[in-house]
Amino acid sequence: MNHSELLLQKIAANTEVVGIIGLGYVGLPLAVGFAQAGINVIGFDKSQNKVDQINSGENYIKDIRDAVLREVVDNIKLVATTDFTRIKECDALLICVPTPLDKFRKPDMSYIESACMAIGQNMKPGTFISLESTTYPTTTEDLMLPIIEKESGLESEVDFWLAYSPERVDPGNASFHTKNTPKVLGAITKEGLEIGEKIYSKAIDTLHLVSSPKVAEMVKILENTYRLVNISLINELALLSGKMGIDIWEVIEAAKTKPFGFQAFYPGPGIGGHCIPLDPFYLEHIAKKFDFDLSMIHAAGHINMRMPHYMYIKIATALNSQQKAVNGSKILFLGVAYKPNIDDARESPALEIMDITAHKGGLVSYHDPYIPSVETHHGASLQSVPLTPETLHAADCVVLTTNHQVFNPEMIKGHARLIVDLRNVIKESSDNIFKL
Amino acid sequence: MNHSELLLQKIAANTEVVGIIGLGYVGLPLAVGFAQAGINVIGFDKSQNKVDQINSGENYIKDIRDAVLREVVDNIKLVATTDFTRIKECDALLICVPTPLDKFRKPDMSYIESACMAIGQNMKPGTFISLESTTYPTTTEDLMLPIIEKESGLESEVDFWLAYSPERVDPGNASFHTKNTPKVLGAITKEGLEIGEKIYSKAIDTLHLVSSPKVAEMVKILENTYRLVNISLINELALLSGKMGIDIWEVIEAAKTKPFGFQAFYPGPGIGGHCIPLDPFYLEHIAKKFDFDLSMIHAAGHINMRMPHYMYIKIATALNSQQKAVNGSKILFLGVAYKPNIDDARESPALEIMDITAHKGGLVSYHDPYIPSVETHHGASLQSVPLTPETLHAADCVVLTTNHQVFNPEMIKGHARLIVDLRNVIKESSDNIFKL
Repeated sequence: MNHSELLLQKIAANTEVVGIIGLGYVGLPLAVGFAQAGINVIGFDKSQNKVDQINSGENYIKDIRDAVLREVVDNIKLVATTDFTRIKECDALLICVPTPLDKFRKPDMSYIESACMAIGQNMKPGTFISLESTTYPTTTEDLMLPIIEKESGLESEVDFWLAYSPERVDPGNASFHTKNTPKVLGAITKEGLEIGEKIYSKAIDTLHLVSSPKVAEMVKILENTYRLVNISLINELALLSGKMGIDIWEVIEAAKTKPFGFQAFYPGPGIGGHCIPLDPFYLEHIAKKFDFDLSMIHAAGHINMRMPHYMYIKIATALNSQQKAVNGSKILFLGVAYKPNIDDARESPALEIMDITAHKGGLVSYHDPYIPSVETHHGASLQSVPLTPETLHAADCVVLTTNHQVFNPEMIKGHARLIVDLRNVIKESSDNIFKL
Repeated sequence: MNHSELLLQKIAANTEVVGIIGLGYVGLPLAVGFAQAGINVIGFDKSQNKVDQINSGENYIKDIRDAVLREVVDNIKLVATTDFTRIKECDALLICVPTPLDKFRKPDMSYIESACMAIGQNMKPGTFISLESTTYPTTTEDLMLPIIEKESGLESEVDFWLAYSPERVDPGNASFHTKNTPKVLGAITKEGLEIGEKIYSKAIDTLHLVSSPKVAEMVKILENTYRLVNISLINELALLSGKMGIDIWEVIEAAKTKPFGFQAFYPGPGIGGHCIPLDPFYLEHIAKKFDFDLSMIHAAGHINMRMPHYMYIKIATALNSQQKAVNGSKILFLGVAYKPNIDDARESPALEIMDITAHKGGLVSYHDPYIPSVETHHGASLQSVPLTPETLHAADCVVLTTNHQVFNPEMIKGHARLIVDLRNVIKESSDNIFKL
């Protein structure tokens, strides 16, 4: 019996072991999904802290229900470990590591490379390997394959199968989670695709198969580039509308009544999170190799990078209308999460605006119901202050940077002396309410 | 009884006369819609030919059913005229004239100005006036209002009411037509908005009221800018994908399986028609007045303008693969309409590609089932040739420029010697099928 027959037999008997490498907001829900389907899952992470939390049934991902995590840990369907030699126990390895950009906006592939090294050094023959991290097209075949082959001495598509299947996790989405979000899968060979389909089907309702890893890689980039470009477009139109005395929010509500050919995006102080601000630049990176200039992504990136600065100008303008300078004024920011109702401040534009404001002499504080403390990009450490009539009234300016649903517009309006609303929370403007 | 009370009384009694200025693809369906609702409609157009056709019940707009036009003409609910002095018979005037760009991509406002002159010189007091043509924000109040006041000697919002309500006509759309497409309406005063709502409601199912004409003007621009930017983005990604050996059509089909936050756009040889290639540049025009640079629109416009040239390169590359030059080769274009299943070649990229190809010595012919003859941008006059096995086989290269549903991929593939498919009609590539 060859490797693929053996693996397919295990999959049919539900006895395969699935290893998930990286236990963050993508990897942990996926690990829980497989474990819930009755598959034995080993979760790998370099963080001893995360591993200990999981093994004691403590959940740290908002989108996973605590009881569900506890159940699969109690049933020993999911175990977490920092010991990467246990990769050899796995029949399938799904890689969910971060792919950040470095300080020069170049892709930092070190997490993927390091995962591939660990896999190559520890895997057994007959393993299915799939990358879920967002990256530039060609990564699976041109970067991962040679590392794994070299470290393992095994041959791709004979001794192991390599695939790419992008995560589509949307933190805070009440309707779509890992299981019911259709998943794209591209493998190098038909055999790899068949094995991947059989494995993923256990945890994912709908799979969409494509002809190659690089097609699947481009799918993810297209999805997020679409969002970056459209948010940047509406931000640019919001800035022009501001100059023209047009309420962009009213414009968007009206445009939404078009029943075909339109999807609404909303302006904001800039794009945050782990995907949209980063992914398009992966494509820009690989495009250079093909002597290709991506002008839409370039323009969109430029607008997005400038937004926090424009938002600072808006704060300064609002204070100026009350004959105050930023320098020495108390400025309270409401919300540092990069989108509503989540506890994640990564790449959040609020942090950037707070840094600029503090740098200009503003006395910066913040409140976020989900994020008790933050470190800004320039290294300032801040604790969330309570949201009370007193803290609101004490501020020279209150800046709405995240539209958390729990924010009460009436209460904020009732006590703040000056408001800069970057998220249309207050839904009106006046002498002391400035809207984006 | 003042003007507004009188007009509202007529509207309540269904005895108002509605004048439609401009009887093209926007004005004629609107005129028919009001006439079908039992309102007396006078249609104004400078073209004696169009007026004669309508008055003899001959329909020239594909989206209107012939029988419906004949019925409202036979019932004398709709009469057409070139006599603009009959404007004085109208209680409401809806302006549906073209707003093209001139050769320097500046808005040509002469049609609107001319309509306003005619209205000002002929209207009676107590008239409601609404512009439907796409234009830049501020047009209604800053351009139209002064002309009408000066020519009529009447006062806006006292003797007449001015509004803006953008058309959302989508030729060839099987689900949404004039009546069931929600319509945005913005007027200068509440009184004008109330009158406008009562009039439009007779022909339109759903109205969305906004606070000013300039908000309504921006709505239309946002809708079409969204499309221009997204089509340009996917065109740019298609060009890169081509270089990387990735099938962009397969990527889009896969991305479409994302159930949130994505809307699919498709690449093509460039953007045609009367709206999307033009409207965003209206905004670019007015933005200059506000010292504002619209970088997203600029980048999108640049890509769109270059597409026909890139498509020519694709044709040359395909011919080159068979050791043929464009110069002297027979090149047959299938489809000159700017989108599928319609009979409109305005601003069609096919015409541009045909011009470039002919200029380089290609022997250009075309077939379009809906367009028997065309004049290209550079003035060449061409007749549609029949689509037969012989014409397909006789061509050195067959170029698919419009994806009309009636095109039979099997038949084309079976007889063409070389295909350049710019619309994914054939859905495969090979040594003699080149895809965008």
